[in-house]
Amino acid sequence: MTIDLPLILDLLGVFFFAVSGSLLAARKGFDIVGSVLLGSMVGLGGGVVRDIVLNQGPPAAFSNQIYLVPPLAAALLVYFTVKNVKRSGRLLFMFDAGGLALFCVTGSLKALDAGMNPVACILLGVTTAVGGGILRDITANDVPKVFDPKDLYAIPAFVGAGLTTAMWHLEWLNLASGTAAAVVVFTLRMLSLRYGWHAPLAARSWAARRPRRG
Amino acid sequence: MTIDLPLILDLLGVFFFAVSGSLLAARKGFDIVGSVLLGSMVGLGGGVVRDIVLNQGPPAAFSNQIYLVPPLAAALLVYFTVKNVKRSGRLLFMFDAGGLALFCVTGSLKALDAGMNPVACILLGVTTAVGGGILRDITANDVPKVFDPKDLYAIPAFVGAGLTTAMWHLEWLNLASGTAAAVVVFTLRMLSLRYGWHAPLAARSWAARRPRRG
Amino acid sequence: MTIDLPLILDLLGVFFFAVSGSLLAARKGFDIVGSVLLGSMVGLGGGVVRDIVLNQGPPAAFSNQIYLVPPLAAALLVYFTVKNVKRSGRLLFMFDAGGLALFCVTGSLKALDAGMNPVACILLGVTTAVGGGILRDITANDVPKVFDPKDLYAIPAFVGAGLTTAMWHLEWLNLASGTAAAVVVFTLRMLSLRYGWHAPLAARSWAARRPRRG
Repeated sequence: MTIDLPLILDLLGVFFFAVSGSLLAARKGFDIVGSVLLGSMVGLGGGVVRDIVLNQGPPAAFSNQIYLVPPLAAALLVYFTVKNVKRSGRLLFMFDAGGLALFCVTGSLKALDAGMNPVACILLGVTTAVGGGILRDITANDVPKVFDPKDLYAIPAFVGAGLTTAMWHLEWLNLASGTAAAVVVFTLRMLSLRYGWHAPLAARSWAARRPRRG
Repeated sequence: MTIDLPLILDLLGVFFFAVSGSLLAARKGFDIVGSVLLGSMVGLGGGVVRDIVLNQGPPAAFSNQIYLVPPLAAALLVYFTVKNVKRSGRLLFMFDAGGLALFCVTGSLKALDAGMNPVACILLGVTTAVGGGILRDITANDVPKVFDPKDLYAIPAFVGAGLTTAMWHLEWLNLASGTAAAVVVFTLRMLSLRYGWHAPLAARSWAARRPRRG
Repeated sequence: MTIDLPLILDLLGVFFFAVSGSLLAARKGFDIVGSVLLGSMVGLGGGVVRDIVLNQGPPAAFSNQIYLVPPLAAALLVYFTVKNVKRSGRLLFMFDAGGLALFCVTGSLKALDAGMNPVACILLGVTTAVGGGILRDITANDVPKVFDPKDLYAIPAFVGAGLTTAMWHLEWLNLASGTAAAVVVFTLRMLSLRYGWHAPLAARSWAARRPRRG
């Protein structure tokens, strides 16, 4: 592994999640400062939790100032380019999926580099990927996307974290294969949204009354 | 203290809390993946916060894979056995009380073993016990149970953490006395629910208009 | 820097935020235990997150028992003195502003003493100052004050953290200048509430339909 792959993919993941946060801030009528803060919470929150769990000094988001660039860029992008806030829902889903795809790869990678066992690496990859989005949705008083039963969210993240961990142990992981894993996750997530792929409900007996996508 | 007492009681506490999380997931119409995730957040969240505060390397929930068994078992149990989701409220309260009872004991114990002072041990026991439930209820967009003024929640946890800390210093703590402390907590919590025992409201002047259990 | 300045200002900040938490607990109809817990979450939450990020052993709130005094005092104060809970909204805003003002100063200071770079110190000051209030409002199921577009909240905190960091590097920081920075933050926050000073909305196109203060 080179040092650059995780950083480039990680910053791109921060940017995608930060756009989703700034879009939600715009939809909720927050101001530009709230947009930067919510974008930062989504983009940096999952990674901060991961770095705190790995317990290897202050989280990268605080010690490395380059991590501040993506949330600021995302807030500016949303401020200047979003024409119709009410119709930005699909865009929000796409950027959220991009962040999910990149973070399950880079989250696992950081845990692998820190010498955690394979199961813990997969878990930390998934935690990094879903953590920021949970923070975003809780803060804006929504039920987190990861709990929406009408599509798949955590399963693509598990697939991506599993692929990354397996490829790392086989020494197949590089910029191309890491990006490919992220593309697989993104595609799975978007297809599940498009075609309504979903997992069984939490209680089997509840299934008959399952809410359907209108 | 042997090593096994905390682990056995801790895993049982994780299981009880995870069942409460999976039950809430079922009630909210989440899918089976959301059930595993919410169960994991409730069952493992309080302990992860405790281990991060103790600052002794990665939290047990990530480094020891046996902690994954209870949330998976809880999600399967809820999936296969819950017949009537709408009537599962009382069950949820019982499993939540079981988790509360065990975690205030094991949480204090971990802090005592880490050499914290007695007051910090009681606080960490209470934090472990109420932390997971706060995460669960916030995520599902409910006001946390610990803030419900119609019964006692944090007080039984303080009693359990205090008993554990006192018995540890007197060298009376073992599997039997630890379990007894948990039984006291569980009983206090359930009796407060049954008979509506409650603490005074946060402002004295508010008391006249106190909401009563229907 | 003497050791006492941060501790005195920090304890005062904990007290102010704890009063805001206990007032919100009273407004929501929580009991006295919930009042202590919510006050503790607001008063101690931001600092616990800061200390975990700094990664220098257990957070001060757990290891130093004097941090428990302000939340208990705040809950008692609210219990005995608040006559009309419904009219306590303005009081809540004032104590919240006091906590914000003191925590952006003491939060930056702790990060400076821990040897972080200036940008990280400003960020940690702001995180400490806004973190507790976000926890408070999420827990009570409100949208956090920091995201209210009708006034300024994070910008005064940035100003205070920036002043503190600059004065520390110029060796101008002492009890008087630190207190002055906090007074500037408090004044900015209260003036923005009084006169409706606000930042632009998160999306420029949204501005025409900006909600106005009734």
